Amino acid sequence: MNVLVLGSGNIGSVAAEDLANSKSSIEVVIADNDEEKARTVAENIGAKNLSSMKIDVTKRNRLIETLKQFDLAMGFLPGDLGHLLAEACVEAHRDLVDVSFGPENIMELNVAACKAGSTIVPDCGLAPGISNVLIGQSVSKLDRVKKVHAMVGGLPEKPVPPLNYVITWSPDSLIDEYTRKARIIRNGQMVEVDALTGIEELMFPELGRLEAFYTDGLRTLLYTLRDVEEMWEKTLRYLGHAEKINTLRALGFFDDKKITADNASIEPRKFTAKILQRALSDPKQRDVVALRTEVSGTKNNKQVTYSYDMLDFQDSKRNITAMARTTAYPASIVAQLILNGKIEEKGVVPPEKIGMKTETFGLFMQELKKRGIDIKEKHSEGNQIGQSRIR
Amino acid sequence: MNVLVLGSGNIGSVAAEDLANSKSSIEVVIADNDEEKARTVAENIGAKNLSSMKIDVTKRNRLIETLKQFDLAMGFLPGDLGHLLAEACVEAHRDLVDVSFGPENIMELNVAACKAGSTIVPDCGLAPGISNVLIGQSVSKLDRVKKVHAMVGGLPEKPVPPLNYVITWSPDSLIDEYTRKARIIRNGQMVEVDALTGIEELMFPELGRLEAFYTDGLRTLLYTLRDVEEMWEKTLRYLGHAEKINTLRALGFFDDKKITADNASIEPRKFTAKILQRALSDPKQRDVVALRTEVSGTKNNKQVTYSYDMLDFQDSKRNITAMARTTAYPASIVAQLILNGKIEEKGVVPPEKIGMKTETFGLFMQELKKRGIDIKEKHSEGNQIGQSRIR
Repeated sequence: MNVLVLGSGNIGSVAAEDLANSKSSIEVVIADNDEEKARTVAENIGAKNLSSMKIDVTKRNRLIETLKQFDLAMGFLPGDLGHLLAEACVEAHRDLVDVSFGPENIMELNVAACKAGSTIVPDCGLAPGISNVLIGQSVSKLDRVKKVHAMVGGLPEKPVPPLNYVITWSPDSLIDEYTRKARIIRNGQMVEVDALTGIEELMFPELGRLEAFYTDGLRTLLYTLRDVEEMWEKTLRYLGHAEKINTLRALGFFDDKKITADNASIEPRKFTAKILQRALSDPKQRDVVALRTEVSGTKNNKQVTYSYDMLDFQDSKRNITAMARTTAYPASIVAQLILNGKIEEKGVVPPEKIGMKTETFGLFMQELKKRGIDIKEKHSEGNQIGQSRIR
Repeated sequence: MNVLVLGSGNIGSVAAEDLANSKSSIEVVIADNDEEKARTVAENIGAKNLSSMKIDVTKRNRLIETLKQFDLAMGFLPGDLGHLLAEACVEAHRDLVDVSFGPENIMELNVAACKAGSTIVPDCGLAPGISNVLIGQSVSKLDRVKKVHAMVGGLPEKPVPPLNYVITWSPDSLIDEYTRKARIIRNGQMVEVDALTGIEELMFPELGRLEAFYTDGLRTLLYTLRDVEEMWEKTLRYLGHAEKINTLRALGFFDDKKITADNASIEPRKFTAKILQRALSDPKQRDVVALRTEVSGTKNNKQVTYSYDMLDFQDSKRNITAMARTTAYPASIVAQLILNGKIEEKGVVPPEKIGMKTETFGLFMQELKKRGIDIKEKHSEGNQIGQSRIR
């Protein structure tokens, strides 16, 4: 069996290493448009069954020919390239596990993927990703689902002034997340709300008081879970972050339209991205990832709530951030479940579907635990969620 | 008698009108580098004893010759031109009442002004200005002065999000005020502290809870009041303003050093000035000016505190802001006191000296009251100040 890992950044390299180490009979090739970067990553990992190659995913025909030489592909590409890869995998009749965060609705590829016999698992990282698996499991236990909540955040271990946040990804993507409308379900209807609204405070074990606010992250759940009264994703931050970001937004620092100052014309959001990059970067800060899912509904005519809490810390010994761990490992685990024949379903298979099946859910959780990612389950009778204080 | 008013902006035009209306025997000429602007202002005021002219204060010799044709000059120029005017007045042996806020130490002109027989009243606006007069009066009543506090703010009538503030002057000057070190007296020594620190909350009649923080505004008081234990000026804002401004500062939005983004290089503070200009301008908002001075010390071996509160509202009928009223009227009043022979002292005469003399203080307050600027005096035994909650 051989796997093509596309993208040799922080996440792709951790996934390639995990996959190569999982079974010596799996041949792994890590590919990047930057050939040198891919080679260096492969050399640093130093596994016998891992090599590297150059790839340009915008060269469609060559990409399809390359994919045909592999059993499965894993995508760790920028959001604007993810869909190209998914389409190419369908055309090559190959399976894909992907974590890219593109604007397209991946569900539209379902029929073509079924016909091609491809298994396409999109959004298979942290959130979307682990969150969907947990929500899928909770949903499968209920007769009727009423409310679905996902809360997730990548944070520094301690609040770091001035925004109590350290940037570990692209500041442009952060501004995107904070300005894109969030699609949520309210009273059974999909509505769009402003990001950074719906702020509530909650306690998170070991981290203390956090705040949560709407961001756009439900993605496939908007299509796979029907007849839900309420469903939203919120981003977790230390207290005070949202108000400060909202101040920047209200002042116009995230605007698109160029303004002229100091004899130069500049888009405020691009300027602000530079300012945030400089002010919020601190490689010495260790990161932590917090995730909570809550699903409530009825079972045997009783109100029940199933919730999961996950808290993951940076692997300082191996210098792998919590964000890389919790994004790369679920993708690697799901790829192995496909290769081992545990996931046989064809078409677009969002991670919530993996969570809905007892066997695959159990294997997924077991593999996460092996990698030190421990998720606590809690269930309670009565509708306990939705009681957080809304400001 | 004739007076040359230099600068035909919001403040200069209000002062010129007040002066022209005060006595028909005073001939007033309003002058500006923008001749058309000065003419329009004079025409709009429409007083028989008011005319206009062009002036370029950077042409030193011509400025001096012009000044010699007048009994007194009033300066409403940008900070970087104020000192030029003061020097020219001394050279022309003429009197000056000035409100410009320049970096120079005006006290250094004292000897030359005395020799020339000129009366130079600097900083004769709101604060410095009215605040100095009130502090001077309080100081004159004490045997020994311990603490001197001045708090002042130009605010919208109600807090206006996102910064609870509306900009009524140059955003560059606002950023200057917020980034320039504040010189204060602490334990009898002059020290520099960061602006926007020392935040305390206080109640202000009719406005409610405000916050106050250090800004650099003591100016001549640093030289005229000696042997004081503690002296500071703080700026008043609605609650929450300072924290948001401090966030912008901490993120680097007020930095001088250019950064490059969107193919353009730009100084963050200049970019931010544009953003603030756009986001905080709202001509429909009526303004209000709040001022409090507190001076405590001993009198007949008892602790005494003298304080003054002033709250002034926009003159909506005549469309004159509270800021223009409280800056232009003190200058016009002091100019009239000089013309009427009530202020005879030569040299640099800071407004606190006008406040220290019972007669000139009384006349000053009486004239402010005629213009609707009502200042409440309070005095109490025991050291009541310094009890505000410091965050």
